[in-house]
Amino acid sequence: MEMQQKLILVTNDDSVNAKGIHSLVKIASKLGRVVVVAPDKPQSGMGHAITINDPIRMNRVEMFGEVEAYSTTGTPVDCVKLAIYEILGQKPDLVLSGVNHGENSSTNVLYSGTMSAAIEGAMEGLPSIGFSLANYAHDADFLQYESFISRIIAHVLREGMPEHTCFNVNIPNIASEAIKGIKFCMQAHAFWADHFDRRLDQFGRPYFWLTGEFGEVNPKKDSDLHAMSEGFISIVPTQFDLTNYVAYEKYKFVEL
Amino acid sequence: MEMQQKLILVTNDDSVNAKGIHSLVKIASKLGRVVVVAPDKPQSGMGHAITINDPIRMNRVEMFGEVEAYSTTGTPVDCVKLAIYEILGQKPDLVLSGVNHGENSSTNVLYSGTMSAAIEGAMEGLPSIGFSLANYAHDADFLQYESFISRIIAHVLREGMPEHTCFNVNIPNIASEAIKGIKFCMQAHAFWADHFDRRLDQFGRPYFWLTGEFGEVNPKKDSDLHAMSEGFISIVPTQFDLTNYVAYEKYKFVEL
Repeated sequence: MEMQQKLILVTNDDSVNAKGIHSLVKIASKLGRVVVVAPDKPQSGMGHAITINDPIRMNRVEMFGEVEAYSTTGTPVDCVKLAIYEILGQKPDLVLSGVNHGENSSTNVLYSGTMSAAIEGAMEGLPSIGFSLANYAHDADFLQYESFISRIIAHVLREGMPEHTCFNVNIPNIASEAIKGIKFCMQAHAFWADHFDRRLDQFGRPYFWLTGEFGEVNPKKDSDLHAMSEGFISIVPTQFDLTNYVAYEKYKFVEL
Repeated sequence: MEMQQKLILVTNDDSVNAKGIHSLVKIASKLGRVVVVAPDKPQSGMGHAITINDPIRMNRVEMFGEVEAYSTTGTPVDCVKLAIYEILGQKPDLVLSGVNHGENSSTNVLYSGTMSAAIEGAMEGLPSIGFSLANYAHDADFLQYESFISRIIAHVLREGMPEHTCFNVNIPNIASEAIKGIKFCMQAHAFWADHFDRRLDQFGRPYFWLTGEFGEVNPKKDSDLHAMSEGFISIVPTQFDLTNYVAYEKYKFVEL
């Protein structure tokens, strides 16, 4: 008797045209039946945005060959919702997001469309994994990391995941042979020292580009950034309960 | 000798035109020197989005009378960054966001532009508060809650806040006289049961509106949703470290 194939939803934030999602679909297709629902244009930095003031369009696309695939005008989070409630008509066994062109470690998890899709999966009660590679090149070689990516996916398909949790997986930008292994980590305490590049347009009016440098505050050995810098693939088990319970325990006796 | 006035940054996600921010500016101006930097158009549901693929425009606006104010084409998070790094040239003493037209309790904190601005303030190491009223009307009466809002702001200006934390304040949609008090809470475990309203355009092509019902799973007495339903203003001390530490302690011994 044949085992029922697992149903795997794949999305991302770099759009259906990005090499990262095509690589992930290729890897995931060996582990289950894949359906792709992803944005039709880049949605990097969209965080947990949803589309509420505009209608969303969705189209069947053929660019994934035999794999059923849809592009939408929505955000990564919209794509997860559309997949579950409009396309699949059921909850998939696993939600995968990525592979992102660029890393999403540390506090970048908050800005990341890739990880917001995975968090949305967790909110739906589904095991979910966001994959990111610390390489922004459009033609980065994702498939060299296939054995690591497969191992993580297979583990989750086999063992499941704690409820309302997802994995934030970050791959350092080094050749796969140089990778030392996979390490579970905490989210690093790192922040952007932002600045804005102020320019003038053809009418002499100013406009601003967001830019900045990223750095860890009080570096920790257990952090995702540290693991990556040591040549490991980092996995942070990620939740969406933002309550600061330490502060809550203190404040609940405060009279306002 | 006069005390140095506190510098208070005010932003929101409903835009500089919303009644909620004008009410908050009025209240905050009695407690310090206010500078407004807010979106030029509604940005509800934008989550922690930032603008990275487009330049941002910013203009001085006069609609707040004597209060220095700017509108930007950016998201709420962009506004906080622009305020600190481009306009103020220093960190303010406090970041306020809102008052939002509509509630942001429970997991809505993740979708909320209002709360993402407050979380961004916390990431900058600043005491930050997001205010939301469970009333979506454009002409809702925010000023009736002035004494509660003032009390919360004054407490934070006086006592500070734990580092890298912000307050998620939600006011139930009842008359201010009926409010029983202010209660510190945990983020409720509540989710959207989404569905999409599928319609056809003038060419017979489908488009989708996101819609759904919101409900608490395993209702808790200590949750923000519960407090609001009992007539309290809820405050959840909110953090941005998404590590699931319980899962981390288990996984760190797992070999992948």
